[in-house]
Amino acid sequence: MAVEDLMRLLTEDQIEYFMGLAIQEAEKGLAEGGIPIGSVLAEASDGRCWHTYAGHNQRVQKSDPILHAEMDCLKNAGRLRSDVYQESVLFSTLSPCDMCSGAVLLYKIPIVVIGENETFRGPEAYLMSMGVKLIRMNDSRCIKLMRDFIKKNPKLWNEDIGV
Amino acid sequence: MAVEDLMRLLTEDQIEYFMGLAIQEAEKGLAEGGIPIGSVLAEASDGRCWHTYAGHNQRVQKSDPILHAEMDCLKNAGRLRSDVYQESVLFSTLSPCDMCSGAVLLYKIPIVVIGENETFRGPEAYLMSMGVKLIRMNDSRCIKLMRDFIKKNPKLWNEDIGV
Repeated sequence: MAVEDLMRLLTEDQIEYFMGLAIQEAEKGLAEGGIPIGSVLAEASDGRCWHTYAGHNQRVQKSDPILHAEMDCLKNAGRLRSDVYQESVLFSTLSPCDMCSGAVLLYKIPIVVIGENETFRGPEAYLMSMGVKLIRMNDSRCIKLMRDFIKKNPKLWNEDIGV
Repeated sequence: MAVEDLMRLLTEDQIEYFMGLAIQEAEKGLAEGGIPIGSVLAEASDGRCWHTYAGHNQRVQKSDPILHAEMDCLKNAGRLRSDVYQESVLFSTLSPCDMCSGAVLLYKIPIVVIGENETFRGPEAYLMSMGVKLIRMNDSRCIKLMRDFIKKNPKLWNEDIGV
């Protein structure tokens, strides 16, 4: 499926719905004592309906420095065929960092939907220069989750972004 | 510690030794039925001696698409302080892909030693443009491990690099 067809398949309602799932993941992470970032991979490789996989940041819960939300989501999706990634959309409540953006490039995920990029901004220009389409939602729920969290846990947040 | 001091601390013998450990990891992966790529993180945050963490590609063993060798190594190292990454050298038997290069940038690892980049080449120019120092060894043992593996397992190898 061409990226244009994937874009057509992705309605505004669906974008809202999938970001809602990613926010639920972020809230699940927060309830577990973790960093509230969630992610959903929605794949449409059968050309009609979407299959979703979800994950959330696990730094605290699993003491794991590589399990950012997007990485946990890709891990939970398991071993997919290359063409499945290429017909997928990755949702994240927060702008993906260098590592997660790199995973997007590795697996050639063509579209990334970003909940917000106010509290942190990854290499969005680089992703776009590599041909990845970005949809930025500036979602107030995502911003509030991160603002509240960073205010209460500045040290933990800095650890998560290598600062 | 400045990058120049880290470079001074890293002797040729040590480079050989740490890459030898990474190759042992790659061989361990091969013996497990996995993809033979190994990685070592050597950190010198106490300014005198090196502490090492190791890992290898776990796609097959753990059915995990994010556990490239470098990622498994960072996972095994656990949650480190930001300044520890910044006084570390990452060794990989193979040129790091987009995802693993992104992890290097996220954690600001200043030096990456690459066993070989003949059988696969990640975004080395991008890493260098971001200030990461690369040491390329063109190691014949690393090349042989990958050549033999790719010849026998082309499909599995393509899956690992999103092709």
